[in-house]
Amino acid sequence: MNNIRVGIVGLGRLGKVHAQNLATGVSGCELTAACSLVETELAFAQKNLGVKHTFSSYEEMVKSSVIDAVFIVSPSGFHCDQVRLAMENGKHVFTEKPLGLEVEDIKKTQKVIEEHPEQVFMLGFMRRYDESYQYAKKMVEDGEIGEITLIRCYGIDPSEGLESFVKFAMNNDSGGLFLDMAIHDIDLVRWFTGQEVDQVWAIGKNAAYPELDQAGELETGAAMMSLSDKTMALLVAGRNAAHGYHVETEIMGTKGMLRVAQAPEKNLVTIMNDQGIIRPCSQNFPERFREAFIREAQEFISCIQEKRQPAVNAEDGLQSTKIALACQESFDTKSLVQLKK
Amino acid sequence: MNNIRVGIVGLGRLGKVHAQNLATGVSGCELTAACSLVETELAFAQKNLGVKHTFSSYEEMVKSSVIDAVFIVSPSGFHCDQVRLAMENGKHVFTEKPLGLEVEDIKKTQKVIEEHPEQVFMLGFMRRYDESYQYAKKMVEDGEIGEITLIRCYGIDPSEGLESFVKFAMNNDSGGLFLDMAIHDIDLVRWFTGQEVDQVWAIGKNAAYPELDQAGELETGAAMMSLSDKTMALLVAGRNAAHGYHVETEIMGTKGMLRVAQAPEKNLVTIMNDQGIIRPCSQNFPERFREAFIREAQEFISCIQEKRQPAVNAEDGLQSTKIALACQESFDTKSLVQLKK
Amino acid sequence: MNNIRVGIVGLGRLGKVHAQNLATGVSGCELTAACSLVETELAFAQKNLGVKHTFSSYEEMVKSSVIDAVFIVSPSGFHCDQVRLAMENGKHVFTEKPLGLEVEDIKKTQKVIEEHPEQVFMLGFMRRYDESYQYAKKMVEDGEIGEITLIRCYGIDPSEGLESFVKFAMNNDSGGLFLDMAIHDIDLVRWFTGQEVDQVWAIGKNAAYPELDQAGELETGAAMMSLSDKTMALLVAGRNAAHGYHVETEIMGTKGMLRVAQAPEKNLVTIMNDQGIIRPCSQNFPERFREAFIREAQEFISCIQEKRQPAVNAEDGLQSTKIALACQESFDTKSLVQLKK
Amino acid sequence: MNNIRVGIVGLGRLGKVHAQNLATGVSGCELTAACSLVETELAFAQKNLGVKHTFSSYEEMVKSSVIDAVFIVSPSGFHCDQVRLAMENGKHVFTEKPLGLEVEDIKKTQKVIEEHPEQVFMLGFMRRYDESYQYAKKMVEDGEIGEITLIRCYGIDPSEGLESFVKFAMNNDSGGLFLDMAIHDIDLVRWFTGQEVDQVWAIGKNAAYPELDQAGELETGAAMMSLSDKTMALLVAGRNAAHGYHVETEIMGTKGMLRVAQAPEKNLVTIMNDQGIIRPCSQNFPERFREAFIREAQEFISCIQEKRQPAVNAEDGLQSTKIALACQESFDTKSLVQLKK
Repeated sequence: MNNIRVGIVGLGRLGKVHAQNLATGVSGCELTAACSLVETELAFAQKNLGVKHTFSSYEEMVKSSVIDAVFIVSPSGFHCDQVRLAMENGKHVFTEKPLGLEVEDIKKTQKVIEEHPEQVFMLGFMRRYDESYQYAKKMVEDGEIGEITLIRCYGIDPSEGLESFVKFAMNNDSGGLFLDMAIHDIDLVRWFTGQEVDQVWAIGKNAAYPELDQAGELETGAAMMSLSDKTMALLVAGRNAAHGYHVETEIMGTKGMLRVAQAPEKNLVTIMNDQGIIRPCSQNFPERFREAFIREAQEFISCIQEKRQPAVNAEDGLQSTKIALACQESFDTKSLVQLKK
Repeated sequence: MNNIRVGIVGLGRLGKVHAQNLATGVSGCELTAACSLVETELAFAQKNLGVKHTFSSYEEMVKSSVIDAVFIVSPSGFHCDQVRLAMENGKHVFTEKPLGLEVEDIKKTQKVIEEHPEQVFMLGFMRRYDESYQYAKKMVEDGEIGEITLIRCYGIDPSEGLESFVKFAMNNDSGGLFLDMAIHDIDLVRWFTGQEVDQVWAIGKNAAYPELDQAGELETGAAMMSLSDKTMALLVAGRNAAHGYHVETEIMGTKGMLRVAQAPEKNLVTIMNDQGIIRPCSQNFPERFREAFIREAQEFISCIQEKRQPAVNAEDGLQSTKIALACQESFDTKSLVQLKK
Repeated sequence: MNNIRVGIVGLGRLGKVHAQNLATGVSGCELTAACSLVETELAFAQKNLGVKHTFSSYEEMVKSSVIDAVFIVSPSGFHCDQVRLAMENGKHVFTEKPLGLEVEDIKKTQKVIEEHPEQVFMLGFMRRYDESYQYAKKMVEDGEIGEITLIRCYGIDPSEGLESFVKFAMNNDSGGLFLDMAIHDIDLVRWFTGQEVDQVWAIGKNAAYPELDQAGELETGAAMMSLSDKTMALLVAGRNAAHGYHVETEIMGTKGMLRVAQAPEKNLVTIMNDQGIIRPCSQNFPERFREAFIREAQEFISCIQEKRQPAVNAEDGLQSTKIALACQESFDTKSLVQLKK
Repeated sequence: MNNIRVGIVGLGRLGKVHAQNLATGVSGCELTAACSLVETELAFAQKNLGVKHTFSSYEEMVKSSVIDAVFIVSPSGFHCDQVRLAMENGKHVFTEKPLGLEVEDIKKTQKVIEEHPEQVFMLGFMRRYDESYQYAKKMVEDGEIGEITLIRCYGIDPSEGLESFVKFAMNNDSGGLFLDMAIHDIDLVRWFTGQEVDQVWAIGKNAAYPELDQAGELETGAAMMSLSDKTMALLVAGRNAAHGYHVETEIMGTKGMLRVAQAPEKNLVTIMNDQGIIRPCSQNFPERFREAFIREAQEFISCIQEKRQPAVNAEDGLQSTKIALACQESFDTKSLVQLKK
């Protein structure tokens, strides 16, 4: 079977992770093209990853015949346009989350995707491909914890990135904590429960950097949701975890509870010193989800080879953005928000 | 110094715990009297605990001269009346939580308490006297986790009591999950943060016993609160923890996080068998808070001896009931509830 | 029932722990007498613990009629003599470990004890009264881990005491690491397995304070033992645990393993900060075994009241000292030592 | 750079793991040849792994020009011969542990290896390539735990393989528990401490299958070692861990302790159910060391490409076998064994 030829757009921090994986860690594919406006990023792709074709125009790349599939790791605002353009040019598409920032734009994109059922479309909710999450999902599906009553999701970035985020936030719009950060957790809520969100209330507090209030941004936020079957969801999103990258998910059922990464243990080492008994922590998302990113890309390539669609689709993109926007609206209006069906 | 002579009212499950502690585990006191309508309970107190004076009338007991102080462990609906009667008869008073079920009744009681400043009044929020909670509180006060941004409190009873609760709930009123169960966590929120609750939204789901819907009761409920300084509080109360008695509290701050009883470990034993690596769990509140109950009673006696008032007072009783009632109102009306100042 | 009147000899660090427990934490007894050569210790006992009778002569105390029982917490070298004297004067006897430092002396004492079967004799292996150890013991007896194949015992003192031990060791004889420290673990080996030791090899290393080599003392030592039914025992004793007081016991069986205090967790608090995920540790034996000391003393008093003998007897004292001496002999002679039947 | 062409010999359980990694998980190489006496194994290699050249004669394979390097995963008794033959035919060599079963044979092989310094030779102590072990090693090298005083190594296979081992052992010679199983731990002792073993005493017990006594095999064994600088080493090897594949290593130093895999946690999931709080366990070596096997093979290929020798060499093979043989001799002769320099 011929290798799937992939072109990537976006070579920032996460883009580099994906590019590296496609170049060496994923089988059945070849990273043949890269698109960026940053000259040094393209040089990196050529020299370090052996990428043959580089583009400064995304349109040129998706129209060229040197790729079969595109990997979109550009800023969120570009995702919808780039997905449509690639789909319309006959390419398989993987895009990072979120699928889009506005509901109408996503719906339009979803329609284009549906018009090309023979092309693979996949959305980058990589946590679904993490081994611990898959283990938990299987336990839930096997009924080992009974019926789900409550799910709690934490997604908190390490403190070390907070100061630079504050600087960024003074002059830029991140899309808000819920769309920027909580969207992974929103997807987990939907994935584990199989339910849609009915109502949401979101609140937040800026304590380390009160100046974030002016920027309309949040250091730490929380959202509580009631799902269509009354299952409860508690979300905490934040940018200030002193110990590292804290992504934790808890699922309570009528017969037991599960916690994925109750603490984000870095490895199997325990240290005993004058501080006490210590488990070191994962420090960032490339570390915590290193394997999940590879398995996610592998699934994308396998879907193309085996002519099937992955489990994470455009509808997941639509719903997760709708919920994230509802969280933001709730926070902005200080009121309970009812989601539209 | 003479021993403080204590009379107890209520010798149910928790009453027996207190009575036993007062009879043998607490120094500086003597359990001289007991009041109950159940003949066998009084016989137990006489025979097993050496109680000299038994009463079927509470009024008689608080008016008698054989006690200096009263320990109220009767059903919640009696607390306010019994506190007032004891205060007015010159006795020191310890009462179990909640101080009362209605705000006006509590305010009336609070007034009576304030009129007798020379008598000790203490409210039974025993978690404050647990060593782990005290350790956490000291860390917070020492600034080790910076400013608090969020507090999460779980109070979930073991599954084994659920079936009998369902039977009870079909014909009785527990006061509701939030007043019955979450009130301890509400006290912890106020104790750790030093803030009052501003707004609350509460939801719930009955999954193991859907018939609880008709009874207006909850198997599992959640409440999210915004405090006066925007600190966030997440509460989960429930009656269905398969692994035991799950009381967990997490405090997030700008410099670190603390978890008290991330898992309710029963002791220091770890078992490795074909189930995996296992830590056994505390199975109920008398086990988990055995020492806290003793230390709490000891503090009550010491306050009397040292002529000072304990840290848990009537105002704590008033505020915690107000918040619990607001949770219940939010759940009943399916809306965000604003607390009155 | 009248309170048992107890006299204590030795009011050093551990003596104070016992004295406090007997004075306030143990029911059914009264601490009526104390014996010490240190004036301030006796003053402390009078003032803080309400001890009525003080003695500078042990002989006087055990001959007086103000006590029914004696609690021996003097230096190890005095234990045998003091046990015999108390027994011969009709007193019940509790003595701290070790029963003695020399086999012949212990045998002589054992004979005296056996001549007074109506008096209670108890040896202070308090770990047997710790809740976690009792939980583990019950699991073993219930067959939950099958037949025991190996037991591993760690007993390591916190580093903070090491420097002062080094100073002490330069001019004194501690009896050696195995008799001074490992004897508790030796008792655990015998208690859990029900077997006697057949052969032993002991080694050691001084790394933080190499000067201990000259003193004939050890910072850290290890002993491996083969028991009569081939069960294996691994012991580590030491004086340099940076994280606290590390007493850990592991029991491997054909169906599972148990660990008691895999890490000496101080309480139920977990801290997450820039060091990682931290569990604080117990810092010393009074902290770790606080309740065990009380339960042990309570058992002694109960035995007297109920006219029965405790489970820890003179034979346990004889065998544990024999094994500790064999460890020391093995270390000194650098050879495998065969224990005599 | 051209891919290194690798031929593998041995396609049993571990052989398949290596073959799969070389075929798809390791970059810079190609699995071009396979040698086995089992027809179906070769068919598997051709069909599933795309291996082009298959051999039933090892000699033919190492003499052919279709490979640059050989991966030896045959039974231990063949290793030495096969290493020499490959070396003498100009091939780079990776061999599974142990390098050999007899000291003289290993020395002869070591001489051949040294005569071909331009060819890479690597020994399969994969634990050195596990992330947790590397993290621990770095901490030790950075001095974070001070000087090492004691190392404890457990290597215990899961119970589920025990019954079939017993059947195997009745008619075959495994080489003994220490050479078969403890050799990985022996390598860890040498790797972490940088010291050689001076004296050893080894014991063992068969409890689940006493019939192993007749076979001269062990279900569980322990060895205590004194190293050249007096550092202590405790080894437990076994075949009966009910909870899974228990490989644990502890390193005590003057400033702290480290534990690698205090418990062999399978992933980041914690389960709370009626058994307690559970962490699932790794079930076997391919699961626990999945990544280590890949990283080990990657290091072998990188060494060839970069013309350097890996850290694990023939001397490590010689010493580890010498120590394992000394353990076996100690167990057989029931005496302390002094290793020759």
